[in-house]
Amino acid sequence: MSETIRVQLNEDEMPRAWYNIAADFSKPMPPPLGRDGKPVTAEMLAPVFPMNLIEQEVSTQRWIPIPDEVRQILYRWRPTPMRRAVGLERALGTPARIYFKDESVSPAGSHKCNTSVAQAYYNREYGIKRMTTETGAGQWGAALAMACKLMGVELRVYMVRVSFDQKPMRKMMMNTWGAECLSSPTNLTQAGRDVLAKWPDTPGSLGIAISEAIEDCVNSKNTRYGLGSVLNHVLLHQTIIGLEAKEQFKKIGRYPDIIIGCAGGGSNFAGIAFPFLADKIAGSKSPRVTAVEPSACPKMTKGVFAYDAGDVAMMTPLLPMYTLGHEYQPAAIHAGGLRYHGMAPLVSHALRQGLIDAVAIPQVECFAAAVQFAETEGLIPAPESSHAIAQAIREAKQAKEEGREKTILFNLSGNGVLDLSGYQAFKDGKLIDHIFDGDDLKKSLSCIKGLPKPPPL
Amino acid sequence: MSETIRVQLNEDEMPRAWYNIAADFSKPMPPPLGRDGKPVTAEMLAPVFPMNLIEQEVSTQRWIPIPDEVRQILYRWRPTPMRRAVGLERALGTPARIYFKDESVSPAGSHKCNTSVAQAYYNREYGIKRMTTETGAGQWGAALAMACKLMGVELRVYMVRVSFDQKPMRKMMMNTWGAECLSSPTNLTQAGRDVLAKWPDTPGSLGIAISEAIEDCVNSKNTRYGLGSVLNHVLLHQTIIGLEAKEQFKKIGRYPDIIIGCAGGGSNFAGIAFPFLADKIAGSKSPRVTAVEPSACPKMTKGVFAYDAGDVAMMTPLLPMYTLGHEYQPAAIHAGGLRYHGMAPLVSHALRQGLIDAVAIPQVECFAAAVQFAETEGLIPAPESSHAIAQAIREAKQAKEEGREKTILFNLSGNGVLDLSGYQAFKDGKLIDHIFDGDDLKKSLSCIKGLPKPPPL
Repeated sequence: MSETIRVQLNEDEMPRAWYNIAADFSKPMPPPLGRDGKPVTAEMLAPVFPMNLIEQEVSTQRWIPIPDEVRQILYRWRPTPMRRAVGLERALGTPARIYFKDESVSPAGSHKCNTSVAQAYYNREYGIKRMTTETGAGQWGAALAMACKLMGVELRVYMVRVSFDQKPMRKMMMNTWGAECLSSPTNLTQAGRDVLAKWPDTPGSLGIAISEAIEDCVNSKNTRYGLGSVLNHVLLHQTIIGLEAKEQFKKIGRYPDIIIGCAGGGSNFAGIAFPFLADKIAGSKSPRVTAVEPSACPKMTKGVFAYDAGDVAMMTPLLPMYTLGHEYQPAAIHAGGLRYHGMAPLVSHALRQGLIDAVAIPQVECFAAAVQFAETEGLIPAPESSHAIAQAIREAKQAKEEGREKTILFNLSGNGVLDLSGYQAFKDGKLIDHIFDGDDLKKSLSCIKGLPKPPPL
Repeated sequence: MSETIRVQLNEDEMPRAWYNIAADFSKPMPPPLGRDGKPVTAEMLAPVFPMNLIEQEVSTQRWIPIPDEVRQILYRWRPTPMRRAVGLERALGTPARIYFKDESVSPAGSHKCNTSVAQAYYNREYGIKRMTTETGAGQWGAALAMACKLMGVELRVYMVRVSFDQKPMRKMMMNTWGAECLSSPTNLTQAGRDVLAKWPDTPGSLGIAISEAIEDCVNSKNTRYGLGSVLNHVLLHQTIIGLEAKEQFKKIGRYPDIIIGCAGGGSNFAGIAFPFLADKIAGSKSPRVTAVEPSACPKMTKGVFAYDAGDVAMMTPLLPMYTLGHEYQPAAIHAGGLRYHGMAPLVSHALRQGLIDAVAIPQVECFAAAVQFAETEGLIPAPESSHAIAQAIREAKQAKEEGREKTILFNLSGNGVLDLSGYQAFKDGKLIDHIFDGDDLKKSLSCIKGLPKPPPL
């Protein structure tokens, strides 16, 4: 028989702890700051997050145990399979071996469930009865809706108005799991009312929705806020992806030369990459690790490393990160999950130190890659994940030119079953590329002019 | 650690042959007949199916090897997990153990891929360049589109007009895999033109779409037709489900007392049930095996066993099966895959012999069961699969009343990600039950009056 196509792990091989890369960085991370320029304290975050998650957010402990109850839920779809993309390899005629970690098998269809279950659990453990969050395209809102239902926590989701109208199925999915899903801006918050008074016809934005969710949270009893990416504890929960992949490579006696993840806020990329970066930091291995961003929102390849806010209304602390400026409004590409102005501080820190590299790819190339993947592997990827596939194909073609049998790993962060309109637009030749114009950078960054500057590395 | 939640098999534990129950029936099956009342010959089927599939259709060989190339494709998502529904058990407070086989993990989201890959393979092996098929809700069309793309066979799908208009995502999915998907009736076939001339505003029907697909097939070069259920070879390909489940029960040292599948044409039910029926026929085990049909289309519980056609236009052979009459138009319940007037001859024969039983459940109870499942297990089932869940819940409650620790297995035939509008209708209180009225039976069966009668058992 030929080589195993799908590398599986049993329940007892699923990691029992998350990996915290903050323990291993040789250079210290700059701390998040308040508007006064002073480091944020746990007490300042307490109205927004439960203390057990704040502890994870600031922890420098290398291994953080996964609670038994969280593991019992994750077992329902984890460990996820790592598959070899034999059909794609054949179509490319490449000597490279292409593996992907399949996070699309979770109940909500993406990696977001890895952290949603943990967040709902820690909130419930802390006595929280209700959570609020925002969602753009809806993957995060759906994942948190599922987790909150399983943990018995109420949830209200502020969904960006344009997506709320365009993607009714995502809202129905959240409703099926018992969550309330509102079109943001609403008239339930001051932030929403202010926006509606000024621009009644606004399509909404992630920035506005975050402001509404945080305002709702701090003004409500027994309520906390959940974020689907960017923050340290969110990335921590995703490291289970890469930890499993390492075990799976052990089983087949290999180690990847190249590791690839798409990057919006940074959580699925961190999930696949950080456990391998541990080996790179230790000096035992030297994989090339690439974060792929959309050309429409290229904070890592065209932005600056600076202190910036996580939302338009600047309600969040200032985070040290690669950014295009918190007022930047990315073009309406189909990969809604990659339309975020900043990159997670932990990923930004890794990039700044040269542990990873970054590349920006336009959406038409990504959809072409996604269709080739669907046609050869049978699986329709999320538009976000298609960025990782496009880069994997670039690398496989490069390996063919060089005649080298490289081992490539990418993360398939989710499936595209609810994103088929993007595929149809591509098939109909109606997709266009949105390339961030470097000339806009000055304008885009003007909003962070007065903010504190991070220290040199 | 507690008991395994997800029972997995490795690639080398996937069955290498399909199980053919026709080899084990103690009483012979009545043969399919032509309109002249004489048994259908292989030659008569040759314009519609390739000879290698016709051989499977009439085979009485117990084990039919799964070709290596088909296995290599199935490995991409098979063996599928068998999961214990611990969350549902807890919510019901039942002493029963509820297991389900998760066929929703296939690339197109249902068990249909098990036969679509095999059918596309055998057609290509026989030198066929193009296939035609019909689809109702779209699960079958999508599964065959994926398989045909992987095997390099062209595909045209005639999709029932009302579904074509209501479910644009299913069409987009087929397009993504390169298939042509047309709204039926079309003006490309005589059957379609006749219907359009008479009823220009028809919503279409599965019967019309089958007629168009067969007419297209027999009038085209190098083209054959593919059916997603009902026929012997289709059910054969699905037995991999039950064969895997038996291995999975072996791993945990159990055997199910009760086996449940929903039943439209009969293929997913046969898939989970037949390998267990082998033990029942042999007398070594005695599980209760239940087929669940919708109250809107209760051919097994309210219909008759008779010779009937598979389509409205009577282009197919006459099949010996439980039927409501080929002109019966079921109400527009959300479980589109269960809206078929007849039951597969193999399943009908098992029912006639008392090897299985059947029950009809109205759709509101099914959606309530599906929502309870989604809320406790995190997975949103297809409306079709919800019928199996509703029956599993009935059995688990019965076990609670009796205080007995029964082991229940049901087949989760697919996920409901593209059927969320049904869930929304349920949540909004807009779903109603459609109960087949027994008084209608006489009228419904008038269309089979002149047809041959099957011999007594």
